[in-house]
Amino acid sequence: MGRIVGKPNSSSSGSGLRGKDLISFKDLSKGQVISILNESESMLRALTRRAKLEYLENRIMATAFFEPSTRTRLSFESAMQRLGGGVIGFSDVNTTSSVKGESLADTIRVVASYADIIVLRHPKAGAALEAAEYSDVPVINAGDGSAEHPTQALYDLFTIKMQKRRLSGMSVAIVGDLKNARTVHSFAYAVAMFKNNIKFIAPEQLQASGEMVEDLEDNYGIEIEKSDSLDEAKEADVIYIPRMQKERFLDPEEYKRFANYYTINKKFLSKANDDIIVMSPLPRLGELPVEIDNLKSSVYFKQVAYGVPVRMAVLKLILGG
Amino acid sequence: MGRIVGKPNSSSSGSGLRGKDLISFKDLSKGQVISILNESESMLRALTRRAKLEYLENRIMATAFFEPSTRTRLSFESAMQRLGGGVIGFSDVNTTSSVKGESLADTIRVVASYADIIVLRHPKAGAALEAAEYSDVPVINAGDGSAEHPTQALYDLFTIKMQKRRLSGMSVAIVGDLKNARTVHSFAYAVAMFKNNIKFIAPEQLQASGEMVEDLEDNYGIEIEKSDSLDEAKEADVIYIPRMQKERFLDPEEYKRFANYYTINKKFLSKANDDIIVMSPLPRLGELPVEIDNLKSSVYFKQVAYGVPVRMAVLKLILGG
Amino acid sequence: MGRIVGKPNSSSSGSGLRGKDLISFKDLSKGQVISILNESESMLRALTRRAKLEYLENRIMATAFFEPSTRTRLSFESAMQRLGGGVIGFSDVNTTSSVKGESLADTIRVVASYADIIVLRHPKAGAALEAAEYSDVPVINAGDGSAEHPTQALYDLFTIKMQKRRLSGMSVAIVGDLKNARTVHSFAYAVAMFKNNIKFIAPEQLQASGEMVEDLEDNYGIEIEKSDSLDEAKEADVIYIPRMQKERFLDPEEYKRFANYYTINKKFLSKANDDIIVMSPLPRLGELPVEIDNLKSSVYFKQVAYGVPVRMAVLKLILGG
Repeated sequence: MGRIVGKPNSSSSGSGLRGKDLISFKDLSKGQVISILNESESMLRALTRRAKLEYLENRIMATAFFEPSTRTRLSFESAMQRLGGGVIGFSDVNTTSSVKGESLADTIRVVASYADIIVLRHPKAGAALEAAEYSDVPVINAGDGSAEHPTQALYDLFTIKMQKRRLSGMSVAIVGDLKNARTVHSFAYAVAMFKNNIKFIAPEQLQASGEMVEDLEDNYGIEIEKSDSLDEAKEADVIYIPRMQKERFLDPEEYKRFANYYTINKKFLSKANDDIIVMSPLPRLGELPVEIDNLKSSVYFKQVAYGVPVRMAVLKLILGG
Repeated sequence: MGRIVGKPNSSSSGSGLRGKDLISFKDLSKGQVISILNESESMLRALTRRAKLEYLENRIMATAFFEPSTRTRLSFESAMQRLGGGVIGFSDVNTTSSVKGESLADTIRVVASYADIIVLRHPKAGAALEAAEYSDVPVINAGDGSAEHPTQALYDLFTIKMQKRRLSGMSVAIVGDLKNARTVHSFAYAVAMFKNNIKFIAPEQLQASGEMVEDLEDNYGIEIEKSDSLDEAKEADVIYIPRMQKERFLDPEEYKRFANYYTINKKFLSKANDDIIVMSPLPRLGELPVEIDNLKSSVYFKQVAYGVPVRMAVLKLILGG
Repeated sequence: MGRIVGKPNSSSSGSGLRGKDLISFKDLSKGQVISILNESESMLRALTRRAKLEYLENRIMATAFFEPSTRTRLSFESAMQRLGGGVIGFSDVNTTSSVKGESLADTIRVVASYADIIVLRHPKAGAALEAAEYSDVPVINAGDGSAEHPTQALYDLFTIKMQKRRLSGMSVAIVGDLKNARTVHSFAYAVAMFKNNIKFIAPEQLQASGEMVEDLEDNYGIEIEKSDSLDEAKEADVIYIPRMQKERFLDPEEYKRFANYYTINKKFLSKANDDIIVMSPLPRLGELPVEIDNLKSSVYFKQVAYGVPVRMAVLKLILGG
């Protein structure tokens, strides 16, 4: 499938997403992101009033999950069915022809002949781009290796829009395991696109890469600070804190040392900006204690719920329902 | 979700199930059980005439199965789709965020944000009640540990109603592994609610617990007998016989000893009450030899089939379609 | 279920498939095969114009997969949903009651009470026939052991029809692991039924069985040649080449020796009949190098795509939608 190459110019009608792959958040223009967020808001309204939607009534989505991810899979499957569409798929690579030596290209070509769109999850970075080359139908990247997961970045932005009623000119603190959590990368680019300043708060060993920081500064003209003190996040408008990625630590002692390095607890929030919102890609561990679950600042369960309307919007815009 | 606390009073309109959880058979009032059985009969008629039902057209049911149970899962998935609804779910806990240390409460909160109702299966007793506390949508307990599986008790009752054309005043023999089979507990309370006398027939080691017997006698005012002789079941109106629960025997020799302790064969049935019906939660093993499969008394395959209309009724009444 | 016994006589209206099982390609009369292929062509046209089909709107298909086969499962699930139907199923036998000792007959009886049709995959030859005896709903054999997979033979024929615009009087070369590839058997009977001559091209150790050759010659009156030289396939109208079935070789050395015994490469095709088409049951390995993927002769990905309209046709004709 022709993935999104270059940015559609202003005269192109609509979002320019119809029939396109969605491989990386960076492939999207600001205009396209805004289109998706607006469509997401319509979808959310439709969900709220329990409207019966039939936009994708004759369409089938395949979830091709070469590694398991129940959350992402269920959210996409819910989104597709909310739009009236059908779902097929696999989530256990051991039951596919891959075990008989079939290439990714061939598996994708076969699945593309059964469905109208493929949602791909794969352990290898670059797999989604490769799949898109061989698929006759659009491919949505639902996470490939440590690289990209664009619909997650989109519903992160949607969360900010819905909770803050704006998208720009804010201070965003990204806290914790910035080295290993793959969502950090997409999230940082998403908020940079909308001209928000970023504070990367992490212990030295887990800080955001110099390359990324430089790229963000150079290409988006935003202010970036680094710190290892959670106090720096107090004045932020948004805190984003992924869990420590236990499985990526080679040394269990090091994991233990950092497991509860930062905790967004009641005490911290009592000193923080009154309008602060706390986001997480979930699952959460000790960094977000249950004592804050019912505070108005704690929007992480709303955030995960927004995954459905945002994925509905993406499916609708790509399939042109 | 507000589970069913106390019994709805007589002035409450309808079944009082709308928006409620269904955690334990004991949470249901007799009136509610009757409502469900009546609705089940409508559903059965609709199935028989292949009516196209759209009651739950915009709704999605999540099957959150933390341990596998193909029979129960397929039956619920069939029921939901027969009502026009969609299904998402998982049945392999190893693919969920639980392996990353996510709590049941958090997994449920996430799934609740993708679906309109959750059908939960969990190895731990009490899990369904805990899930209901954290879910924004109704939770149906589809088996948690050795405790409860209310829709099974409901379709057991429905089987009696459809096959005997009455629900009360009968003699019910419950035979076999009364200690380990989790369905015995729910079934006993279900028939007690409708004032049927019970004969618990089991070898001493596998008899029904004294507590349960006492509770049934005290609270339902029915007559209960205990025996280890299958002959005592001959005059019953209903026989209910679960398989020996091999996996719960610590001593394989003891299992072997009891495996074929009771057998409902042709010879037994030739001496039994002419209108007797033989029920089983299935799967069946040697206790129900295939030689009786085609006798009119053998209703165990009808019983499992009734799972669909009964679960349709429950889904419809809870989701208020 | 009454499987197809004998051939329907000419006065029977329609295809005579309504309510029937589909266990073996050999159970089908030539008239029935033609009906299915014609219906498949209508289905293909409907897919091409994205028509909304509602033929099986109130129906549920169960995929009872006792061994995994993602390709076949997804193709059937897509077909059923394209017709407006619902899907339930399992693909991991370890989650079924089989592990508690339940017989195939009982599992099938239960699944039959939840669905309107069963698509069965099973490792044991004869399992589909046994299942059909106990099922109250039609059973489609989607592969049982090394024996039969009738819908695959049907879409192989459909591929020939769509690509060659005829079905008879051609020369068909079947090349490679003729001993172990289960699709060879069905395919050979399918092309024999339509009076095509067959060249079995294989090394001596992997040749087609004498029994099958004799049976084809005796019952279909076609010409059959055996050879181990790929050159003999050059003048064929159709080449069919399964992969070497690595998992069936007891001696890894022998597998290595035959793995790339035949290769349909550009060089071979440049010398072959200009209208030749190359088919494969997929997955493909070294026998079909990617260098030929874009040649007009290479129809194997079209072939797998045809699985959907053909299975739609079969489901529609059996369920009488």
